[in-house]
Amino acid sequence: IDTAMTPKITGELLRLLRQTMRNCKYFSEPIQAYIIPSGDAHQSEYIAPCDCRREFICGFNGSAGTAIVTEQHAAMWTDGRYFLQASQQMDNNWTLMKMGLKETPSQEDWLISVLPENSKVGVDPWIIAADQWKNMSKALTSAGHSLVAVQENLIDAVWADRPERPSTQLRTLGLEYTGLSWQDKITTLRAKMTERKITWFVATALDEIAWLFNLRGSDIEYNPVFFAYAIVGLNTIRLFVDLKRLTDPALRDHLQLDSPSKPELSIQTFPYESVYTELQAICTALGPKDKVWICDKASCALTQVIPKAHRTPIPYTPLCLAKAVKNSTEIQGMRMAHIKDAVALCELFAWLEKEIPKGTVTEISAADKAEELRSQQKDFVGLSFPTISSVGPNGAIIHYRPLPETNRTLTMNEVYLIDSGAQYIDGTTDVTRTMHFGTPSAFEKECFTYVLKGHISVSAAVFPNGTKGHLLDSFARAALWESGLDYLHGTGHGVGCFLNVHEGPCGISYKTFADEPLEAGMIVSDEPGYYEDGSFGIRLENVVLVVPAKPKYNYRNRGSLTFDPLTLVPIQVKMMSTELLTQKERDWVNEYHRKCREVVGAELERQGRKEALEWLIRETQPIV
Amino acid sequence: IDTAMTPKITGELLRLLRQTMRNCKYFSEPIQAYIIPSGDAHQSEYIAPCDCRREFICGFNGSAGTAIVTEQHAAMWTDGRYFLQASQQMDNNWTLMKMGLKETPSQEDWLISVLPENSKVGVDPWIIAADQWKNMSKALTSAGHSLVAVQENLIDAVWADRPERPSTQLRTLGLEYTGLSWQDKITTLRAKMTERKITWFVATALDEIAWLFNLRGSDIEYNPVFFAYAIVGLNTIRLFVDLKRLTDPALRDHLQLDSPSKPELSIQTFPYESVYTELQAICTALGPKDKVWICDKASCALTQVIPKAHRTPIPYTPLCLAKAVKNSTEIQGMRMAHIKDAVALCELFAWLEKEIPKGTVTEISAADKAEELRSQQKDFVGLSFPTISSVGPNGAIIHYRPLPETNRTLTMNEVYLIDSGAQYIDGTTDVTRTMHFGTPSAFEKECFTYVLKGHISVSAAVFPNGTKGHLLDSFARAALWESGLDYLHGTGHGVGCFLNVHEGPCGISYKTFADEPLEAGMIVSDEPGYYEDGSFGIRLENVVLVVPAKPKYNYRNRGSLTFDPLTLVPIQVKMMSTELLTQKERDWVNEYHRKCREVVGAELERQGRKEALEWLIRETQPIV
Repeated sequence: IDTAMTPKITGELLRLLRQTMRNCKYFSEPIQAYIIPSGDAHQSEYIAPCDCRREFICGFNGSAGTAIVTEQHAAMWTDGRYFLQASQQMDNNWTLMKMGLKETPSQEDWLISVLPENSKVGVDPWIIAADQWKNMSKALTSAGHSLVAVQENLIDAVWADRPERPSTQLRTLGLEYTGLSWQDKITTLRAKMTERKITWFVATALDEIAWLFNLRGSDIEYNPVFFAYAIVGLNTIRLFVDLKRLTDPALRDHLQLDSPSKPELSIQTFPYESVYTELQAICTALGPKDKVWICDKASCALTQVIPKAHRTPIPYTPLCLAKAVKNSTEIQGMRMAHIKDAVALCELFAWLEKEIPKGTVTEISAADKAEELRSQQKDFVGLSFPTISSVGPNGAIIHYRPLPETNRTLTMNEVYLIDSGAQYIDGTTDVTRTMHFGTPSAFEKECFTYVLKGHISVSAAVFPNGTKGHLLDSFARAALWESGLDYLHGTGHGVGCFLNVHEGPCGISYKTFADEPLEAGMIVSDEPGYYEDGSFGIRLENVVLVVPAKPKYNYRNRGSLTFDPLTLVPIQVKMMSTELLTQKERDWVNEYHRKCREVVGAELERQGRKEALEWLIRETQPIV
Repeated sequence: IDTAMTPKITGELLRLLRQTMRNCKYFSEPIQAYIIPSGDAHQSEYIAPCDCRREFICGFNGSAGTAIVTEQHAAMWTDGRYFLQASQQMDNNWTLMKMGLKETPSQEDWLISVLPENSKVGVDPWIIAADQWKNMSKALTSAGHSLVAVQENLIDAVWADRPERPSTQLRTLGLEYTGLSWQDKITTLRAKMTERKITWFVATALDEIAWLFNLRGSDIEYNPVFFAYAIVGLNTIRLFVDLKRLTDPALRDHLQLDSPSKPELSIQTFPYESVYTELQAICTALGPKDKVWICDKASCALTQVIPKAHRTPIPYTPLCLAKAVKNSTEIQGMRMAHIKDAVALCELFAWLEKEIPKGTVTEISAADKAEELRSQQKDFVGLSFPTISSVGPNGAIIHYRPLPETNRTLTMNEVYLIDSGAQYIDGTTDVTRTMHFGTPSAFEKECFTYVLKGHISVSAAVFPNGTKGHLLDSFARAALWESGLDYLHGTGHGVGCFLNVHEGPCGISYKTFADEPLEAGMIVSDEPGYYEDGSFGIRLENVVLVVPAKPKYNYRNRGSLTFDPLTLVPIQVKMMSTELLTQKERDWVNEYHRKCREVVGAELERQGRKEALEWLIRETQPIV
């Protein structure tokens, strides 16, 4: 059950938390501040209910945010997507810190400004990433304070009815979905380790572990992952997972637990919790030249087990990079998933057109209908994130999720924005369309057209091999900027294949400087927007595949890349001020719509979904 | 005298250097590698002859490059601007390391790959910046090696006839040029120090010191600076400079050396060399809370004098930031300087048109003519960098400088590129034009037009306040990328006002991630290019002023910015494939040319330079 869009009452909770901060049961000396990051011990973006500690303490349930509680203050930092939502979900005990605004202090600067001299700032070392720990610790130390690792989580200490950690059934994926066996993935990983003279690799990100072993779970809503760690040596594989999950014979066979083909491909299994002591044991036995790879975003707790001389922190692991470049089986799966997804959305929009005039469709019922239609498609597993179904002013709340008390009715008078996606066994989808079922205002059309221009500018961009995604971000904004408009979020994120809908190491954002260059086979989203607070929101999102481009010339033989849209859902022509589009942009729209009609039309025909097909044909007529 | 474009013979020099590397006179144990960065103790980009150590050892005389010598190898890293030049200037003892290419190892990685275990790598701590030291030291340490500070410079030890350090006459600048007295600049600096609880500021960059005291020198060719350090406390000012330079009564009066108005504005002067011991003395007397600001690009030697607990390294100093935002007096001066500069260039181009058919104009004589014409303008001081005057294939050498043995004759058959600028007392200029005096090929025109599109795309861009320059870099490349082309340098750099032609902290480059946001009053260059190795080079460069823009809307009241070109020299229409330009781009060209005609035309008229005026009027006819 979601926290509502009304503030959570936190006075008593904060009193209890501050009590634990002074309680010497937890540490030798009281702490003056306690940091509550979002995220779990795997630094997951989406987290299980038992890990929603930041939400529990402040009420804000967006995907990104960090709370800090001192004796006197309680403050919560989040980014532009969540300013409105956070201000509605938190009570007066909390100060909202709007990240990205010039006047907003960083967490470090704020702590230094409010703390008494020589303060101790506590944090759970399993929840904070090693790189964040390092930065925070450095800043606090230079101001005379110190950052201390509090082994027992203080939120858990005051959280009476905290849920259990989930342990759902595991699903094995065959070669027809993955294109590559887990044995081959291990071999490739070891080749990279050998090349860089690395003897051990510690995997902590849940999607990397799921990808590596060709397994999926459902421990975390929307993300088909399971709680686990893995430690890969040059001759050994250790998997840390709730052992009760490994009883299924098919699963044991998939992992070759009972009869490994080769000794170096034999998986040793350990209980989930024993990763700490097992890594300690490995580290005790390290040779003088042994090096351990661990992501610098892994937990501080696990990172610090590895002696500094043996630790080689990396911004992105080799698994993260390998996972980002989809093989041809995965690409084929992603294409199929997006066609099925488009079928469901065409049906949804045709249905909405019929139903909205009756006044019976709400944000929630539309989202439910979208889920129902998707669930009729083959190999549907679930949604890939909570559907953002928003009408009028709710559309301006960037990561809005309809709740009974905010639920608006879809009408002919307001803009409707739906950002939704699903997990299919063959792929993950994420698509946003913005529509008007009556007559949009001139300003709404103008803004939509600028957003469309930005979307096309990225999607049609040709750029050299080796280009990082952040260099493309401004293309999405140029048309908005020219009219003095902008949006306060990045333009795109990596998308997993039947995995997390947000994944690294590439993306398209003004914020991402450590991103890896785009490569053919990578899959990212292209989703510029415009949000008019209190009035409407616009976003246009396609998932796009990085593909080789063949421009006229080939400077220094570098080769060029461009994007091929996997998402094939019509973009509403009614919302466009076509006179603001250049001929090239009109050509792009027409070619895109031609492809939607051809590819999705064939599938609608095959599935016998006539009304949706009629809608598709009407919505994909060429513009002039 | 310049090193020629033929390789320097370095076998004997390297033998001598390697001898010093084994010589225990310089250190307790031999070193296995020695790093020779370009730059001086102030991390200047342009350096005095006595500081050209990297050039001395390897022969390559470009502005950027680092040489590393080991017992077995000698390698030199430089960027795309210099690949050709470096390969021509270095002999077979040297390996050219092409930075920016995927296969090129970093200096650290290369060292680690070639060094025997447990090696010592030496470097002069005055020449290496503190941040570079830190990164290099960390990488070497983690691989079992160590970076050691070698107090005596080993190049100087083998450099028999090394020149003296210059000590030229100092020039004082009055308020009519600076708009702000040095006393006011000190007061503003102290206000920023107080705000950030800083008690001392160490200035090491020569242009910052020149700007702070409203003084100019000519110690370094092209850059009107002088060798000095400054240490500013909340009540004291220490200036470190060759004391012989401070005898002129007008200069003493300017600095109020004999009768300071207030004690806290009294300047104490010290010999240049005593900065080390004086900073040591200050640091010995620091209170427990005292903090010292020093740029993280300052020398390792000086940085490490400050105890770590008191050291507050900053990526850009407050002087660097203050200097970058020009006040109205400086802006007016820069406008005037650019009009005078345009007069000289219009004359040059009119002259070239007449002279080239005679076959008597060479790259060198054209550059000399440009200098002569500039020197006729009021308040001319000298050039702001070596003129790049290049014909045909020489144009593809990005930072080419004509030499007797490379000197080509300007003809009607090849593209001519001239990148030049001057120092006037009221401002600094930097302009590039690419022209053809006969009939350009279709490919030359096509490339020129893509470069022009990129130039316009940046120059006409509207973007929100707070935008960093690197977000605009891709605008300059989009048209080239679309055809598979690119250029391997940044798009723009900050420009000083009668100061260095390259200055921080802002710029327009895919490489600059630590740049500061653009602000109204900042001045940068806009200079995309295209280089066809062995054939021709194209670059179009204007110096542009950041100004407020007034688009239709004003999202979140952030305000918008755009650029106003200060450079007013016609762009050759003959080189444009006008059919590739959009109507908006054609309008931009026509409006730019109208302004050139109006503003520069009036000045040509006033100066009675008829032929140039006729040329200007012809070259600025509207295109359709």
